[in-house]
Amino acid sequence: MRKKSSTKDLSLSSNERLSIKNKSLFTPRKLKNYKPGGMKIYTFHAGFKKKLHDLLIIIFDKVAKSSNVYSKTSTPSAPIIWDKKNNKGRVKALIVNSGNANAHTGYEGIKLIDTYVDCLSKKIMCKKNEVLVSSTGVIGEIFDSKLITNKISKLNKFSQGTLIDAAKAIMTTDTYPKTAIQNISINKEKFRIYGIAKGSGMIHPNMGTMLVYIFIEANLSKKMLDKLLKNNLDKTFNSISTDGDTSTSDTLALFSLNQKNINFNLNKNFEILNRSIFNLMKELSMQVVKDGEGISKLIKVNVCKSRSLFQAKKIGFSVVNSSLVKTAISGEDANWGRVIAAIGKSEENINQNKLKILFGKNLVCNNGSINKKINLRKINRYMKNKIIEITIILNVGRIDNTIYGNDLTKEYIRINADYRS
Amino acid sequence: MRKKSSTKDLSLSSNERLSIKNKSLFTPRKLKNYKPGGMKIYTFHAGFKKKLHDLLIIIFDKVAKSSNVYSKTSTPSAPIIWDKKNNKGRVKALIVNSGNANAHTGYEGIKLIDTYVDCLSKKIMCKKNEVLVSSTGVIGEIFDSKLITNKISKLNKFSQGTLIDAAKAIMTTDTYPKTAIQNISINKEKFRIYGIAKGSGMIHPNMGTMLVYIFIEANLSKKMLDKLLKNNLDKTFNSISTDGDTSTSDTLALFSLNQKNINFNLNKNFEILNRSIFNLMKELSMQVVKDGEGISKLIKVNVCKSRSLFQAKKIGFSVVNSSLVKTAISGEDANWGRVIAAIGKSEENINQNKLKILFGKNLVCNNGSINKKINLRKINRYMKNKIIEITIILNVGRIDNTIYGNDLTKEYIRINADYRS
Repeated sequence: MRKKSSTKDLSLSSNERLSIKNKSLFTPRKLKNYKPGGMKIYTFHAGFKKKLHDLLIIIFDKVAKSSNVYSKTSTPSAPIIWDKKNNKGRVKALIVNSGNANAHTGYEGIKLIDTYVDCLSKKIMCKKNEVLVSSTGVIGEIFDSKLITNKISKLNKFSQGTLIDAAKAIMTTDTYPKTAIQNISINKEKFRIYGIAKGSGMIHPNMGTMLVYIFIEANLSKKMLDKLLKNNLDKTFNSISTDGDTSTSDTLALFSLNQKNINFNLNKNFEILNRSIFNLMKELSMQVVKDGEGISKLIKVNVCKSRSLFQAKKIGFSVVNSSLVKTAISGEDANWGRVIAAIGKSEENINQNKLKILFGKNLVCNNGSINKKINLRKINRYMKNKIIEITIILNVGRIDNTIYGNDLTKEYIRINADYRS
Repeated sequence: MRKKSSTKDLSLSSNERLSIKNKSLFTPRKLKNYKPGGMKIYTFHAGFKKKLHDLLIIIFDKVAKSSNVYSKTSTPSAPIIWDKKNNKGRVKALIVNSGNANAHTGYEGIKLIDTYVDCLSKKIMCKKNEVLVSSTGVIGEIFDSKLITNKISKLNKFSQGTLIDAAKAIMTTDTYPKTAIQNISINKEKFRIYGIAKGSGMIHPNMGTMLVYIFIEANLSKKMLDKLLKNNLDKTFNSISTDGDTSTSDTLALFSLNQKNINFNLNKNFEILNRSIFNLMKELSMQVVKDGEGISKLIKVNVCKSRSLFQAKKIGFSVVNSSLVKTAISGEDANWGRVIAAIGKSEENINQNKLKILFGKNLVCNNGSINKKINLRKINRYMKNKIIEITIILNVGRIDNTIYGNDLTKEYIRINADYRS
């Protein structure tokens, strides 16, 4: 069960504060000062950012199994290159820094990871390929590995942090830390899954500037972890978009902490876990999209009765990423014309004469033209809501899918014209 | 030869005026009060807009041959559906209205075109399929065909307009009329090609909200017209983008007015014409991209030494359409990190370690990491220019290509959060 957080207000940099005025719209549920079992959390101010904590080191009690997905970018950051080459799904420690992405840093970028991983692996006596690394922040600038190794060498002098501390240490332009937890009970055995995430700009399917770490206390095979990830990625983190941009750095890792032995070969048990993983990933992904840069409204696009999932997603993203749709919604204008144009831009094979479009529960277009009984006053009132739901019924097949995004505001321009990311 | 226009200042609606403050940056060359031969131009205030001329009717002296391309949208407007079904490449008259796109208007939208085309074809005694129609403006709203037929019935009472008048009558959020002319001389035979265009928002390859009409005084076969269009479309109108959105309505038509007989079967002669068509289409497409909504800077992205034209275009559009790159340039920030992220987002097969990136003539990234001799002061000075040129050298092949776009400003949000298009 989730409880209200008792942590005090975040201290944010001026850039981070830029979009906080909208924060109250979407206050995420927070966890109590929760120190998860099965791991030690350390966070530091290493010097990537001016004041805030910007380095997270997690040491697992036992070597965790993990299933990872990375950005599909063709210009991956050094940590992604390093992880893909070295990590075999066994993880003793995780190192994440925020403020510098170590991306497009060439051979030097790889070498510096090697230096700090070597330092940590010696310190905690594990193999180098049992350390997983991530970085997020400015692209194209090298940093000194001492920023990290200095902290590693004094690791035992620091006290352990909470899950919220971990979520805070990986933030960049995020306006709040993103955490979620699920309590599971199977055959009277109780265990938890919990996760942290970061990301607010540059978010697009295929993991655009998101870092997500999910921890399952129970013991699972690598194969089961892979399956859980595959089952739930598409409908959660791959169904959100804030600006259609994709990052060089992003990573989602699902860890099994090997604390409880439960028979997940039983379908029934696996399904309970699968459902909880979905709920947790859904909650974290919603926290991410609700923290979109400069957002004033959340946009939910349902594409129904399409030929295929591919078609539903293509049309959904085409609508949710259209600058013209996003600005219309920010201006509280029920501009169905732009929705029609955005559907068409997908170039998907549809039948315009079967198309229905709804804003909320209000039918605006019906079978290829405007609904003649349209109640404009009611629709204009609907557009003042903080969550705008657009439903597009294609009537060419049976597949439904939902995509989440947000509006485009002057605030987004202000944040991104000034901030070097 | 182009001469300075002597036409007086445009009278613009308040929406159109919104982005005019940047107009001085990119004043297009204008034509003298030019009444082209081979056609009669009529423009009217029909009532689609509040005050301005919003209807263009062109009657060709002889039946013109034409080669047309349309928006690839899967939600085409009624005029596109009508033209595709009826027009066989022979055109006696052209009817274009601005202010209402007649898009997503179903059977009624088609029927009303039929009404006004029937009216004109009877008036000028041509076949119905010899009338070409276009509409641009608000999507999803029906209009009364009388707005157009009322003007047709009194056509001979109106005086003929100029090329500039024609360009003005098809404007929507454009801040200036777009016209161009080329004078050609082949074997002492002189003739002209001239064109008009509209478009400022919703511009993307495949003819996003653009209407372009190009007239060649000489006599050409339909096959030659098709070839001229195919030769020159990719490097001109299909290489510009202002916001990655595509319209329901857009059309480019190339007309042969059959005024002069020249032997274009001679390669030499065809090449002279081909080059002139390229120059004219290039000039019109640059006028369109320079009139992007809220634009403060033009962005030119060269992608060099790529494996294929497909790869070069995909990466070029990925960069020029990235909201993060566009906002950085609007903020005069040489944010090469976002360029790298946008290159990666294309998911194209490249070698990051061979990549070079230049802002203007300043090398910022070299072989996979930042150029260590980078002169930040010089680059920051460069970013104050009105035209920002980003060159991306992939070093994986031999193909070069250039894409044009523009920055993303608060002004764009203002225009599009308020205007119903």
